[in-house]
Amino acid sequence: MKRNKLVVVGVGHVGSYVLADAMKLGLFAEIAVIDSDKDVAFGEALDQAHATSLTYMSNTTVRSGDYSECADADVIICAAGPSMLKSEDDKMPDRAQLAAVNAEVIREVMTGITKYTKDAIIILITNPLDTMVYIAENEFGYPKGRVFGTGTMLDSARLRKIIADNYDIDPKSVTGYMMGEHGHTAFPVLSRLNVQGFGEKELDQVFQGKEPLSRERVKQQVVKAAFDVLNGKGWTNAGVAQAAVTLAKAVMLDERSVYPVCTTLHGQYGYDGDVALSMPCIVGRNGVEQQLEISIDSQEMEWLHQSAEYIKEAMKVAKTGKNS
Amino acid sequence: MKRNKLVVVGVGHVGSYVLADAMKLGLFAEIAVIDSDKDVAFGEALDQAHATSLTYMSNTTVRSGDYSECADADVIICAAGPSMLKSEDDKMPDRAQLAAVNAEVIREVMTGITKYTKDAIIILITNPLDTMVYIAENEFGYPKGRVFGTGTMLDSARLRKIIADNYDIDPKSVTGYMMGEHGHTAFPVLSRLNVQGFGEKELDQVFQGKEPLSRERVKQQVVKAAFDVLNGKGWTNAGVAQAAVTLAKAVMLDERSVYPVCTTLHGQYGYDGDVALSMPCIVGRNGVEQQLEISIDSQEMEWLHQSAEYIKEAMKVAKTGKNS
Amino acid sequence: MKRNKLVVVGVGHVGSYVLADAMKLGLFAEIAVIDSDKDVAFGEALDQAHATSLTYMSNTTVRSGDYSECADADVIICAAGPSMLKSEDDKMPDRAQLAAVNAEVIREVMTGITKYTKDAIIILITNPLDTMVYIAENEFGYPKGRVFGTGTMLDSARLRKIIADNYDIDPKSVTGYMMGEHGHTAFPVLSRLNVQGFGEKELDQVFQGKEPLSRERVKQQVVKAAFDVLNGKGWTNAGVAQAAVTLAKAVMLDERSVYPVCTTLHGQYGYDGDVALSMPCIVGRNGVEQQLEISIDSQEMEWLHQSAEYIKEAMKVAKTGKNS
Amino acid sequence: MKRNKLVVVGVGHVGSYVLADAMKLGLFAEIAVIDSDKDVAFGEALDQAHATSLTYMSNTTVRSGDYSECADADVIICAAGPSMLKSEDDKMPDRAQLAAVNAEVIREVMTGITKYTKDAIIILITNPLDTMVYIAENEFGYPKGRVFGTGTMLDSARLRKIIADNYDIDPKSVTGYMMGEHGHTAFPVLSRLNVQGFGEKELDQVFQGKEPLSRERVKQQVVKAAFDVLNGKGWTNAGVAQAAVTLAKAVMLDERSVYPVCTTLHGQYGYDGDVALSMPCIVGRNGVEQQLEISIDSQEMEWLHQSAEYIKEAMKVAKTGKNS
Repeated sequence: MKRNKLVVVGVGHVGSYVLADAMKLGLFAEIAVIDSDKDVAFGEALDQAHATSLTYMSNTTVRSGDYSECADADVIICAAGPSMLKSEDDKMPDRAQLAAVNAEVIREVMTGITKYTKDAIIILITNPLDTMVYIAENEFGYPKGRVFGTGTMLDSARLRKIIADNYDIDPKSVTGYMMGEHGHTAFPVLSRLNVQGFGEKELDQVFQGKEPLSRERVKQQVVKAAFDVLNGKGWTNAGVAQAAVTLAKAVMLDERSVYPVCTTLHGQYGYDGDVALSMPCIVGRNGVEQQLEISIDSQEMEWLHQSAEYIKEAMKVAKTGKNS
Repeated sequence: MKRNKLVVVGVGHVGSYVLADAMKLGLFAEIAVIDSDKDVAFGEALDQAHATSLTYMSNTTVRSGDYSECADADVIICAAGPSMLKSEDDKMPDRAQLAAVNAEVIREVMTGITKYTKDAIIILITNPLDTMVYIAENEFGYPKGRVFGTGTMLDSARLRKIIADNYDIDPKSVTGYMMGEHGHTAFPVLSRLNVQGFGEKELDQVFQGKEPLSRERVKQQVVKAAFDVLNGKGWTNAGVAQAAVTLAKAVMLDERSVYPVCTTLHGQYGYDGDVALSMPCIVGRNGVEQQLEISIDSQEMEWLHQSAEYIKEAMKVAKTGKNS
Repeated sequence: MKRNKLVVVGVGHVGSYVLADAMKLGLFAEIAVIDSDKDVAFGEALDQAHATSLTYMSNTTVRSGDYSECADADVIICAAGPSMLKSEDDKMPDRAQLAAVNAEVIREVMTGITKYTKDAIIILITNPLDTMVYIAENEFGYPKGRVFGTGTMLDSARLRKIIADNYDIDPKSVTGYMMGEHGHTAFPVLSRLNVQGFGEKELDQVFQGKEPLSRERVKQQVVKAAFDVLNGKGWTNAGVAQAAVTLAKAVMLDERSVYPVCTTLHGQYGYDGDVALSMPCIVGRNGVEQQLEISIDSQEMEWLHQSAEYIKEAMKVAKTGKNS
Repeated sequence: MKRNKLVVVGVGHVGSYVLADAMKLGLFAEIAVIDSDKDVAFGEALDQAHATSLTYMSNTTVRSGDYSECADADVIICAAGPSMLKSEDDKMPDRAQLAAVNAEVIREVMTGITKYTKDAIIILITNPLDTMVYIAENEFGYPKGRVFGTGTMLDSARLRKIIADNYDIDPKSVTGYMMGEHGHTAFPVLSRLNVQGFGEKELDQVFQGKEPLSRERVKQQVVKAAFDVLNGKGWTNAGVAQAAVTLAKAVMLDERSVYPVCTTLHGQYGYDGDVALSMPCIVGRNGVEQQLEISIDSQEMEWLHQSAEYIKEAMKVAKTGKNS
């Protein structure tokens, strides 16, 4: 009898939170943990296994293993590789540095996975996310839609929280997202933002906002939010882990939810197979079921192009890394 | 109108997991985070705040702050101080070293808290746990029962998982616990262990165990489980965080659940106000509502005395630390 | 120490589901059940009490009682009175018939509650909802915002499900609501509907809808959905109970979520103290914290006036009932 | 890609609660509802479908259908047939009357199911449960273990609640169960009861019980609890529905939990293929994985034989019913 199975690849700061969140879903019968450091994978799995003895916890089987665990996996979440590098005074942008390092990590992971399956839905978290998704989607013949990235799920959560805090409301009442790169050049699609129907132009009239809504300021605040977390605790993991697990649930329950996730574009916004970035997509049992090209205004389109160009730069480093 | 409020003191490896687990309860309207490193507290709170924007998450308000946050807290969970020191070849036992360091941490924390409240239920996780509980319970005039430690909740979870794995069953079907110190000298109360009614002497007859049940072996396996996690990932946090949050829920809902938690003994097992250790207690809205002195057999009693003596040694270091 | 407390008044088809849903929240330490039929209240409470012994269940104390239980309640959910009358060939519209009967029920309930508290947040479900809210809000000196109705929460859930089904997506990805009466004259605010940013005019272009989006058709489908459930099973309860419990959680956690709930208008849309109907409101620890007057287009405004007039008719019957 | 699927057969008082509870698990991608009254099945499914639009709800697809829905089901829960008959002054015992009526219902259901699958795990709730399980297990060549009954899960929940109330503790802290018939002749296995290690003989010494523990009284109180619910609200559903859904989760997650469920005995307690009753069993992905014959004392053994004989009487009626 088939049992629901998740594999988590990479249990550093982010992957360990993915594991912790997934253990609480009550959705997976089995979770396997893979890490290049087998001791860490073993320790994380064992710690979580002990927690299953406590009140309210489901008896999910959790253990460390190798890529053969992927053979019967339903979902694989990959958080392998360093999650972020602290800003340094270096000529090469930090995301580009990460791109070179993590491109090889992702190639190794995808090689490991594809030895055993091309059926499992793969959700990538590894940064720089867009470049990693591009590599995973395009270099291994993995079926379209079955590999994608958490993308701007986290950036969008930050956007909604910033909007919600400004107007003193529940972020769940805010509909909106960031598009483009997961990172510095992500941009808020404020033309489409709404609070239960109240749009960009109306929010300041209806709510007593702490400060007036400004596209530039919001864009900067979202980026700053990432840095505030990073500079505060040294990494970010809680938000992105929750995002990944939410996507895994959308897949397992075939929810067909619309989320801003990262995939390679094929004709959308004038890009055809040359860049991966985040836009609204339907997520279901087959992974990304459909990409939804939403019309954005001229400022947003300019931001999208800037973001796409920035991603392409990172991709070059990753490709070079591949050949060298 | 009163809002349910939790304060988490100390957000290192353990406290950050406590925070993450507490955010998912849907029970607290507010969670405040205190850490000696204010940046870390800020970063952790902000990361969790972003996660509240995601699907399925409650809009719990989470922020960093100082001890004044305790004034209207319902529950305070303290995971301040280093959680564990790796074993070193040193004349002073490692738990004793921790005792000296963390005794001062706990005194600082209790001083901070008691400036603002003697009403909140305080749940301690800081190690060496039993010594920390003794200090917190006895040096600050805090109302009896309102401060206690997670104790052998985690050791007991490990015990149940070990038993469950041996017989290939759900650990939730195993009733049993460790008593004594939270740590090396904790001992399994196998005379009281049962799997839905099947006792110590019957398990090997009914289930196809991987190995026969042995008190000594189980005792060692529980200690080894802690080291396996520690040596594998460098610390343990998932299990103990879940234990603390389970206790917080038992308090808030006044569940009056029986859990093995740590308190100062007052007459039980021949100890009167001179040691704190774990034994079954009723946990409700007032914290530890009642200590339940369960009869144990002669071997277990011997183990209990060994454990109590070991704790007293650690307590001496902590007391010396106080006066020096 | 304060314990979270819910009181459920009326445990017929709807109230029994409210109780069942509330028991699973893990949020209330105590739930008291009041019903004019004390045996039913006793039986419902006892059945739920037995369920608390099962795996995964919180130990919420549940019992039947009388209005004195309201003295320390945080939230009171009222589903007293018959929930709906089947359509009959009668000169008096069925909702009006209900108005006469249930106006007396609500007056009795409010009299009972206000003997013991004016602090608790009261959430009304009893139909015809808008008339009941008007009576409860205006005849008993209850503090503004602390009593309100589930309103078009359910009608709106139906709207989102209809939209979601048409485009084969998760209803959680649909933002939108019905306004006006809870019932036949509720109207969809399609000018404000959106699917993660895609608006009324775009949906048919982006998604492969089963049928083109039509305001009239959607309005009818929502009403039909109610009848389909009613004619199928004889009553509706699952959706509205979940709505009420979601509101109770928003109150307890002070979520400040925006939901379409029912309150007396004070200046909005030209009505001043003469009618209660549903519009978006912020729901927090004080109940309805703010009513949000959203601009609607001319067709929607016409529907709003029709709905308001219809409610006023029902209110007349209820007022007559009061004096006779 | 395989999607988790549940089928609920029979959505009267009990089945409708099973459906409601299952919708909240976040475990099933699909739930199909079958009822002899297709309108009721349609109405229940539609009502629950509307609820999926609300905050916090998973997008589980729910619809009514026929037995062909069972073809790809993972679990089928059957609550078809009247759940209980009120006690009447009739020569034929009420459970026997039910046996005659519901034996035909179960035969029809099993005939419907087995046309499409012999893989799904079938959980029976229909009363008189033990007779229904016997028929389902033995007349249709269904694989051993894949069909079983909720048995004394509910009676056991009542037992634990009664014990917990007497000693003012959380029922989750009580380990214990009823064995034998689901109904009047069920008996408490007090020789195996324990509260976190405290046994039958110790409870009154350790806890301040409201009344001393008496086997006869407890046995009667459990039966009375059923009648109190029944006489109060007219039926019982909350507890048994929760039990069934807990079992469904144990199956889906392959938890291998030990629960008192109903199966045909094969050698246990001297019965070989001639009666079905409840005893502790391991429940996992294959349904009942193992029956665990626990030693009981002489009084309990006498009760077991009384219960078995009572069930056999009901079985005779059901068999007669079959042949006539």
